[in-house]
Amino acid sequence: MYDQLRPAPADFQVFDTTLRDGSQQEGLNLSVADKLAITSLLDELGVGFIEGGWPGANPGDTAYFAAMAEGAVRLENAELVAFGFTRRVGLRAADDPLTAALRDSRAPVVCLVAKSHDRHVQQALRTTLDENLAMVHDTVSHLRAGGQRVFVDCEHFFDGFRENRAYALEVVRTAAEAGAEAVVLCDTNGGMLPPWVGEIVAETAAATGVRLGIHAHNDTGCAVANTLAAVDAGATHVQGTVNGYGERTGNAELISVVANLELKYGWSLLPEGSLREATRLAHAIAEVTNVPSSARQPYVGLSSFAHKAGLHASAIKVDPNLYQHIDPAVVGNDMRMLVSDMAGRANIQIKGSELGFDLSDRDLAARITDRVKEREAAGYTYESADASFELLLRRELDQLPEYFAVQSWRMFTQGFPGGGPLGERESDTECTVRLTAKGVSQRVVGEGNGPVNALDQAVRNALLPAYPVVEEFELTDYRVRILDQGHGTDATVRVLIQTSDGRRLWTTVGVGQNVVEASWEALSDAYLYGLLHADHGVTAGAAAGLADADLERFTSGAGATEHAGQA
Amino acid sequence: MYDQLRPAPADFQVFDTTLRDGSQQEGLNLSVADKLAITSLLDELGVGFIEGGWPGANPGDTAYFAAMAEGAVRLENAELVAFGFTRRVGLRAADDPLTAALRDSRAPVVCLVAKSHDRHVQQALRTTLDENLAMVHDTVSHLRAGGQRVFVDCEHFFDGFRENRAYALEVVRTAAEAGAEAVVLCDTNGGMLPPWVGEIVAETAAATGVRLGIHAHNDTGCAVANTLAAVDAGATHVQGTVNGYGERTGNAELISVVANLELKYGWSLLPEGSLREATRLAHAIAEVTNVPSSARQPYVGLSSFAHKAGLHASAIKVDPNLYQHIDPAVVGNDMRMLVSDMAGRANIQIKGSELGFDLSDRDLAARITDRVKEREAAGYTYESADASFELLLRRELDQLPEYFAVQSWRMFTQGFPGGGPLGERESDTECTVRLTAKGVSQRVVGEGNGPVNALDQAVRNALLPAYPVVEEFELTDYRVRILDQGHGTDATVRVLIQTSDGRRLWTTVGVGQNVVEASWEALSDAYLYGLLHADHGVTAGAAAGLADADLERFTSGAGATEHAGQA
Repeated sequence: MYDQLRPAPADFQVFDTTLRDGSQQEGLNLSVADKLAITSLLDELGVGFIEGGWPGANPGDTAYFAAMAEGAVRLENAELVAFGFTRRVGLRAADDPLTAALRDSRAPVVCLVAKSHDRHVQQALRTTLDENLAMVHDTVSHLRAGGQRVFVDCEHFFDGFRENRAYALEVVRTAAEAGAEAVVLCDTNGGMLPPWVGEIVAETAAATGVRLGIHAHNDTGCAVANTLAAVDAGATHVQGTVNGYGERTGNAELISVVANLELKYGWSLLPEGSLREATRLAHAIAEVTNVPSSARQPYVGLSSFAHKAGLHASAIKVDPNLYQHIDPAVVGNDMRMLVSDMAGRANIQIKGSELGFDLSDRDLAARITDRVKEREAAGYTYESADASFELLLRRELDQLPEYFAVQSWRMFTQGFPGGGPLGERESDTECTVRLTAKGVSQRVVGEGNGPVNALDQAVRNALLPAYPVVEEFELTDYRVRILDQGHGTDATVRVLIQTSDGRRLWTTVGVGQNVVEASWEALSDAYLYGLLHADHGVTAGAAAGLADADLERFTSGAGATEHAGQA
Repeated sequence: MYDQLRPAPADFQVFDTTLRDGSQQEGLNLSVADKLAITSLLDELGVGFIEGGWPGANPGDTAYFAAMAEGAVRLENAELVAFGFTRRVGLRAADDPLTAALRDSRAPVVCLVAKSHDRHVQQALRTTLDENLAMVHDTVSHLRAGGQRVFVDCEHFFDGFRENRAYALEVVRTAAEAGAEAVVLCDTNGGMLPPWVGEIVAETAAATGVRLGIHAHNDTGCAVANTLAAVDAGATHVQGTVNGYGERTGNAELISVVANLELKYGWSLLPEGSLREATRLAHAIAEVTNVPSSARQPYVGLSSFAHKAGLHASAIKVDPNLYQHIDPAVVGNDMRMLVSDMAGRANIQIKGSELGFDLSDRDLAARITDRVKEREAAGYTYESADASFELLLRRELDQLPEYFAVQSWRMFTQGFPGGGPLGERESDTECTVRLTAKGVSQRVVGEGNGPVNALDQAVRNALLPAYPVVEEFELTDYRVRILDQGHGTDATVRVLIQTSDGRRLWTTVGVGQNVVEASWEALSDAYLYGLLHADHGVTAGAAAGLADADLERFTSGAGATEHAGQA
């Protein structure tokens, strides 16, 4: 078996439930904007189905489906799936408002969860086994008649099969007869082991002839293996979440499942080239959820191809494949030798040429690589902060005009929890910045709802006379992450700021023990990058083509007389 | 198979390599004191073997074995194991200083790693296949003659078996013939899947008749399942690490493996009662390594038995086992209901009774549920902030003594990016707080690396005279999340602060547009909760039993005269 490649089943289905079951994870709370951002990333990953939430169950999910129906994200690869329950006991599906919400979601596909464990029907649903079958049949037929494709998730199928095999199988048959395209067997409490899953899936397939799927949780540490065991036994639909998000111990990690099937089984499941984006996309999704990525996550983790052992290191010099089960590049990851942190020169050269800089000179590329490693060791990250990376490159290449120079900033904030002079408001913040732009030195004040907002106002006010274009800059996202957990408020923080000028978005990074200082650094870079690319016609990477006349306008000397009157 | 209990093999071996292979993890660096502390915790867990390191390879490991030989930790359950290589090419084992270091370690057991993959012998070791066999035989016999028990780890066994089955089997036979007690088959690069492992282990057992062990890595996400597959195929020795530490994606997580074998197979492997300590011990080991624990870790994770979905919650009121694969108490963990906006009154009632509050009154429960929903709509989250939830409950129930009252706080921070009076440091922060505790009103200053650190110092200084116990409080984690993306620095932020008093951990939440204000709220709650539960003997939910005499001590009036001198 171990050296045998099996052919991929036709029309194998990769079903992502990050936005639905994944959001059951403790500490994971997604706004509608978060869900739309993740939808776009999942579609880029190339999954076949994106389960977006439960329309009708809460306002956020309903709003998400409305936004999707209005084209908020145009899906290239995936079908959108609405999750819901079978109709309520004793009601016709046609009269159930939650079933109506599924129809009204305008999602082309619905995934219904149905009870398949007799004890759950009787104790949790408090109805008869027959009524539960009727609920499955009625809801599936009703939605099918309305033109939606339907999957049915059989909740607690494996435990149900052990207690009442005949009934569990009857639920599968009923769902299929009513028009379900695939019936997904769920290990809802995650207690199964691979041989048990394999045996029950094989028996169910043999007894019903129905197309089966698998939905596994990681409570025994076997979610990925349970999923593969089901596939080995005939399941042709796999459900999981990116980064393994999910209730309790999480769901089967979908990238691990797919990478195993693509790289170990030799099956082609994602669109050509998508697997190479897996590492980037998994990290981008983690940025949106703000749940720290596990460095040890299979395939896409920061440490997944990191080698520390001296004996491995020397063998790797002979042949990297001696100590790696796959080439990390096939999942978009990198081999890392832990003596030297992070990415290698090749990566930097590729990234540089993406931005239009020629880094083919080995010494230059090595110097920049060293600089990146040094900064990353201090906590910076350039994976999502492309704008800060470009600024770093330009500083090293001496291609960064000085738009402004900041001498100092001060920030004062106060609160009166016991009641005080602020009335309704609970705190008050003001900030002063001293900076020079186009030869004019100014000290400007800003106020805001909080420190970063006040800093932003002050910088904006200070730059406006020299660069009216800053009026168009808007800070669209602000994220803070603590880097070394375990040191509490004394820890190093990393701030990522995303800015828009209405045409493009860019992200900058700042690091420090003081969250205000780190924010200041990211903010200052955000304005710098914006000015560099704004109305001066500098597009990403076009630095070499910058006209001398333009450059002159950027130097602080050039504007000195022009703006002298505003000092 | 799924309903069949197999008997435990006699003398099954649980071998922990946290201190050796686990320490290959990126970011994990253990001092000798750390290793001794972990040794003691592993022994308490009840593993059979503790692989402590590689004596002779580095001074730390040599010092560790010397300390152990001198009785630094008295092992109750485990045997200490020294790790090392087979002798060097062309040298007699008796003359190899590294082999001598294994003997001199005075560890009763040695685990030798040997090459078993022909290509590795030729390319990495640069010797002949016969010389490698001689190295195995010579080293094992030499150590056995000196009275040590010996295990042999066959590196890259699975890949080696695929390339040169006969040679891989010959290494196993040679080790056993020379006196190895068990030969451990290692999936060194972690690329295997469970059916492949099972098949190769079964073939190896059949071909050699040797006692086999398994050592798996998690590169395909299947380390636990691969270990179980090997056990199913006849292996009677399992290696792994607590919390899954290890190079790249880590080793097989040993507690998951053992819990699966104890609870799913019905085998008794650890000493009576030890499994109930697993959660505490896993977290204690994480405290020593300072690698944050994964909340989703099977069996022992903080979230492993946490339920968020409203529909689960109502079913759990009927029967907790409907949604749990085991009783969490058997691994020393707890079921937790997450208070979230997906939850209804049932969740709040369960959560309340977990904390010892009687919320059976429907009106009361409804009022508190409304309050929670209102706060969650404003951005608060209680699913990870148990302490803030308890404070909310107590406020609603009028069961919260006033330990202190804050009148105002002020925070000032400044930076000089252009160079300035701070020298090396780039920013400077100071904070003042005015508060009343035990009738004494004070205005106190704190300074720190950043705003939150400075606030913390100020509050701590202000509370110390009245409550010396605050000296023990330590802020162990600080997290910031922006709630409504798309509004940039003007957005609402949520701050979560985790605090420890060395015995328990608690999490509090604050929300506001000003990150400093939100941090202040979480910080203030953190101190309040700590005081409530600290030396006053208030255990979770015991508020109703609070003696009047105790209550008197808590009121600001009572202490007024006592502490007047400190004003």
